[in-house]
Parts: sequence; C-alpha cells; structure tokens
Amino acid sequence: MWHKTGMIVHERDPYNAETSREGLLAPITGAASFYVRNHGPVPDVDERTWSLAVGGLVESPARLTLAELTENFAHHEVVATLQCAGNRRSGFLPVEDIPGEDPWGPGATSTARWTGARLGDVLRSAGLRDGAAHVEFEAPDVSDLADPPQRYGGSVPLGKALADEVLLAWAMDGDPLPRVHGGPVRVVVPGWIGARSVKWVERITVRTDPSANWFQATSYRLLPPETDPDSAGPGDGISLGPVALNCDILTPEPGERVSPGPVRVRGYAHAGEDRGVARVDVSGDGGATWVQADLAEAASAWAWRHWQASLELGTPGRRTLLARAWDTTGACQPESAGALWNPKGYANNSWARVQVRVGAQD
Amino acid sequence: MWHKTGMIVHERDPYNAETSREGLLAPITGAASFYVRNHGPVPDVDERTWSLAVGGLVESPARLTLAELTENFAHHEVVATLQCAGNRRSGFLPVEDIPGEDPWGPGATSTARWTGARLGDVLRSAGLRDGAAHVEFEAPDVSDLADPPQRYGGSVPLGKALADEVLLAWAMDGDPLPRVHGGPVRVVVPGWIGARSVKWVERITVRTDPSANWFQATSYRLLPPETDPDSAGPGDGISLGPVALNCDILTPEPGERVSPGPVRVRGYAHAGEDRGVARVDVSGDGGATWVQADLAEAASAWAWRHWQASLELGTPGRRTLLARAWDTTGACQPESAGALWNPKGYANNSWARVQVRVGAQD
Repeated sequence: MWHKTGMIVHERDPYNAETSREGLLAPITGAASFYVRNHGPVPDVDERTWSLAVGGLVESPARLTLAELTENFAHHEVVATLQCAGNRRSGFLPVEDIPGEDPWGPGATSTARWTGARLGDVLRSAGLRDGAAHVEFEAPDVSDLADPPQRYGGSVPLGKALADEVLLAWAMDGDPLPRVHGGPVRVVVPGWIGARSVKWVERITVRTDPSANWFQATSYRLLPPETDPDSAGPGDGISLGPVALNCDILTPEPGERVSPGPVRVRGYAHAGEDRGVARVDVSGDGGATWVQADLAEAASAWAWRHWQASLELGTPGRRTLLARAWDTTGACQPESAGALWNPKGYANNSWARVQVRVGAQD
Repeated sequence: MWHKTGMIVHERDPYNAETSREGLLAPITGAASFYVRNHGPVPDVDERTWSLAVGGLVESPARLTLAELTENFAHHEVVATLQCAGNRRSGFLPVEDIPGEDPWGPGATSTARWTGARLGDVLRSAGLRDGAAHVEFEAPDVSDLADPPQRYGGSVPLGKALADEVLLAWAMDGDPLPRVHGGPVRVVVPGWIGARSVKWVERITVRTDPSANWFQATSYRLLPPETDPDSAGPGDGISLGPVALNCDILTPEPGERVSPGPVRVRGYAHAGEDRGVARVDVSGDGGATWVQADLAEAASAWAWRHWQASLELGTPGRRTLLARAWDTTGACQPESAGALWNPKGYANNSWARVQVRVGAQD
C-alpha cells in the first residue's frame, strides 16, 4: 500500500490521492506532493531487471535495459504539468452524481521537471516502417476497472510521439523516478491528459491504429450525457488527448471566512498542447465585474501559470469568487459545469467557483 | 466599386459583404457567394506585371512572377474554410454596442478549394537563415483604419508558414482567383483567422519578430472589456491566430415562423488549426434538453462540418434554438456572448442562439 503525507486521499487501494490546495501553489510541485492516479496496484518493478520492448511497425525491434536507455540516448529535461482527465470532477457532482469515479478537486494536476530520453529518439533509432501512425504504451499494472481485468495502456498519434517534449523519463526533479510515479521509467506526454503518460512502461508498439487497450478505446472518452457508461463500447464518444484550457482558485479555500478589505486570490491556469495561458480574469461578485489577475511566468511552454489578484469583497456576507482563463488563441473557458457534465466526469474546464464568507474571524 | 449579388453588404467602400445563410449551406461556397472582407479599396493588380518579393532572413532573396510561381513550384490543393475574426460579431451587440466595426452575422466565413504553391516550398527555395521565426505578408491595399493609413499586412509564426496546408493560391475552385478575393495571388492560412490570409500579396519577409503592421501589432487582438480600443497600442491584448471552435444555426432563420411538428435545424461548425469538430448538440427548449446533430463529413481537415437535427418544438409560442459544438479534444464552446464581449468584437464563439416562433403560417 502506498501513502504520501499531506495528500487528499480518494482511494487507498489502488492508491489515488490529490495534491492539497497549498501544495498546488508551488511552481514545481515536488514528488512528495505530486498527485497520484492509479488504476490498479502499484506493480513490483525492479530497475535491475526492467526492460523496455520496442516493436510493431519498426525496422529493428529492440529491448532496452535502463542502462541502455540512459547511456545510448541523449538526456533531455522538460518542466511539464500533468493533469488527470478527471481533475475538477467534483464540480460536476452538484449537477448529477458520477458513481464509481473519484471526486477529484483541483489537485489532480501537478508539475515536475522530468528527465529522460526523447521517445522520438528511441523510435527513430528503431526505424519507423510504412503505416506507422500511432504509438502504444503498455504497463504491468493490472486494473479491474476493465472487464475482464487488463494491463494498463494507451497510445498517442505518431506526430505527438515524435515531438521534442515527449520523454521516456527516469527522473523527477533530479531524483530517480519514485515507484508510485512510474519508476523506473514512465512516459511523459506534456499537454495531454495524464492517462497517456503511462507509468512503468515496458512495451512500446508502433501501430497503424490507436491502442485497443480499454483505457484508450473505451475509457477516457467524453460520452454524451444520456449515455450509460457501463454499456459504452470501444470508439464511443470523443477520445481525450490534449488538455482543455482550465484554471482553479487555490486561496481562499471554499467556505473560508475572509476579513473585510482587500482579499488576495491565488490560483493556477493551464492550457494543453500548443496553447498557452494568456489572461486570467477574477470576479468577487459572481461575474458582474472582473479584474485581470497578475500572471506568473510559466516555467516552460508545458507548465501551468500561477496567478493572483486582489479583490475588494465589500460588506459582510456570502460571495462567489470566479476565475476564468483565456488562451493564446483568444479562446475562453466555458462558463458552467452543467453544460459540460458527462457520464464519466471528464474534462471539467468550467470557470472556477469558490464560495467564501466575508466577515470578522470567529 | 465591387459588388456581388445575393450578399449581405455591410459596407460598399471598402466592399465588405457576408454570405447569406442559404449560401452557407453549401459544402463549397463558390466564389460568387464567398464572403468579402476588405480593409481598403480593392487594389488594381495586373497579373502580367505582378511579382512577389521574398526577402528578409533568407539566403537568396527572390522576386517571382506569376509564371515563375506557377511553373517552378509544385501545385497543391487544399479545401479550407476561412473565417473572419469578426464572424458572429452581431451576437455581441445586445451585450454592448461595438462602434466602427461591421455587425457580421454567421456569414463572415466560407469554404473554397484553393490551388497554389506551398508557402513552405517558396521559403525553402529561398533558404531560411538563422533567427527566422515569423513570416510577414504585405499587400498593396491601403487602409485608413490605421492612422496614418498604411498598406495591409500581417504575419504567422514560421512553424505555421512551413506547414503543408499553407498556400500561395492563384486559383479558387479551379478558376483563377478573382480580384476581390485577392487575385492574382493570395496567402491561404487554413485554420487561422482570415486576416492572416493576406490578399494580393506582393512581399514576403522572413523575420525574427511578428509583423509590425498595424493589422498584426494593434488590430485583430482580443482586448480586455474595459480597454478603449482607440488608445490600444502595439502588443496590447491577445493576438488572434488559430480560429476558435464555433458553430451557427442556418435554418430556421432568426424570427422565422415554423409549423408545429418536427423542425429540421441545419448549420455549420468549425474548429481551427489542429482541432476538428467531433460533436454538435442542438436544443429546442433553451438548453433544458439536447439532441445530437448528424454531422456531414468535412471536405478536408481544414474545412467546416455541416450538421442537421430534427427537433420537436411542441406547442405554439416562442422558442430559442441553441447549438454548441465539441472539438476533437473534448472541449466545448462557451455558453454566453456576454462573457466573451470585447471592445473590437472578435472571436464570438458562444453557443448559437436563434429565436423562432412555433405556429401556423400566416
């Protein structure tokens, strides 16, 4: 059983825990506070015997030990935010319950400095064959979310797999990758839902089609609201890949009592894939008026941006704080969770909403 | 003075006219119905003397005649939807007026089959030098929207300029490019706001920075609501590039009286750059319930998708029809124009809203 202190634990077995609001305020989260999303038990992987098979539509199938991976390929670092497709699912629950899925708050996302080999370098070294279009990752953790249970896996299109930012990472913030975060080696696919950053990866298969693994073909898909998720089949709904523009408010916390006078509001914003965060607006009056937040620089093109604003919340009483982000193409987040609700509770990127009470402290 | 029949004309000089709802129902719009957005008088360009200068950060500056462009470079075809950044601006006007900008409805967008040389081929032929990061386009049309008046221009980042889909186009739907649409040669930048598809292009300059032209540096930027657009300077706001996910309802038309019984609702949806349209929902009761529309195949990855749905609108009375699109990443359009309103009225990609009356025909 895995455990990290200071986390908000949703499940103990498999261990699923999100980063606290306080933990989310750091530009680099740190392994101790980094969110954990598991679909099955953390597997026993021995880095001395671990190896990575590279096969499918390649000229020269290969099997790489950890020493071969780290010694035969150039090392690259990327600061990247990972975000679970279920991040902020809790915002959907007032609309309609989502049985069987963890009620993640804003903390199913975290940022680390990853070190590894470029997946593209490994693929080019093996040589791509005609028809190569998707790259599948397989891991040894077995999940009973699938029926029958199966090993975790997924895939990304070849174009993304070859992109400079995609790593086979063996280090996190300069330390060997902790087992619970996928050590000895995990895939890191910046800008895409965390589900594609497969942990404990041990097999890479170049294919013509996306992976048939349950977590690619059936799960992690945005289903229309009227769909029964238990009867959804392969290919139903929209396959989730690049992370949608999102943000949340980290302080004050929901239900917090704040003193009259200016209140400092802080949070994060993140835009997936080729998009960045360009602006964040914050409102202290439920959306009647907005102020622009000050944006911190992103640590990289693949990392979130923290922001802060000072709001005058006026006379004592309840207030709804709102935040919304705009991306570098000029697009804004959708307003309400109700419009985005879906049976598996993915991709809630509606405006951040936090209720506080203005008044003297008790 | 330019004129096309059957268009909704917003300005006669410079000629600015949008495609009718009926015209928007065709997969390929046709030159006769294609929307026209001009910033100044249509220039006199003689294709016998026209030439294209290629300079800036290139190894071999060049000047190409039309014969050289069409004979020395491979021909490519792309079916692409162009969309003005001001498309659907009229939806902003009930929120707050936008003086000095045309109240475009859903018809500042159209689709054509473009033929031309790849911009990337022309740039590679000239040879890129170190520091090349943006590609600027300049045209001879002079606009007094800038103060002092200046020639129209703009730029795109080098990565987009080199992409396969970006053309120097001399033909539209198989015919020589009409003058009002930029003939003899225009840039076509699929997936980006129409402003970057510079018409009558006569100079291409490879640069380290985006163009300093007023239409790149100051205009076509999404400003915060409180900004006075007349005092906005270069670099203010968010520079618009990739087109935001959008849709509109084409039939029934606003204010139309429809018979009781099932009503066929038709429209278009479009997602810019690397995104596609994955789903369209339509509501006949103001958003209480939704049905999924049937989506037509897109003519290319760069073209809109038409859709249709059958709605039961129930008993006589006023109804608000809504439509909203989801893109291939699982993101949805924002709900309300009020949240997106900006001083220049760009990028209104809020849900489509059309009021109709259910009742017997007069």
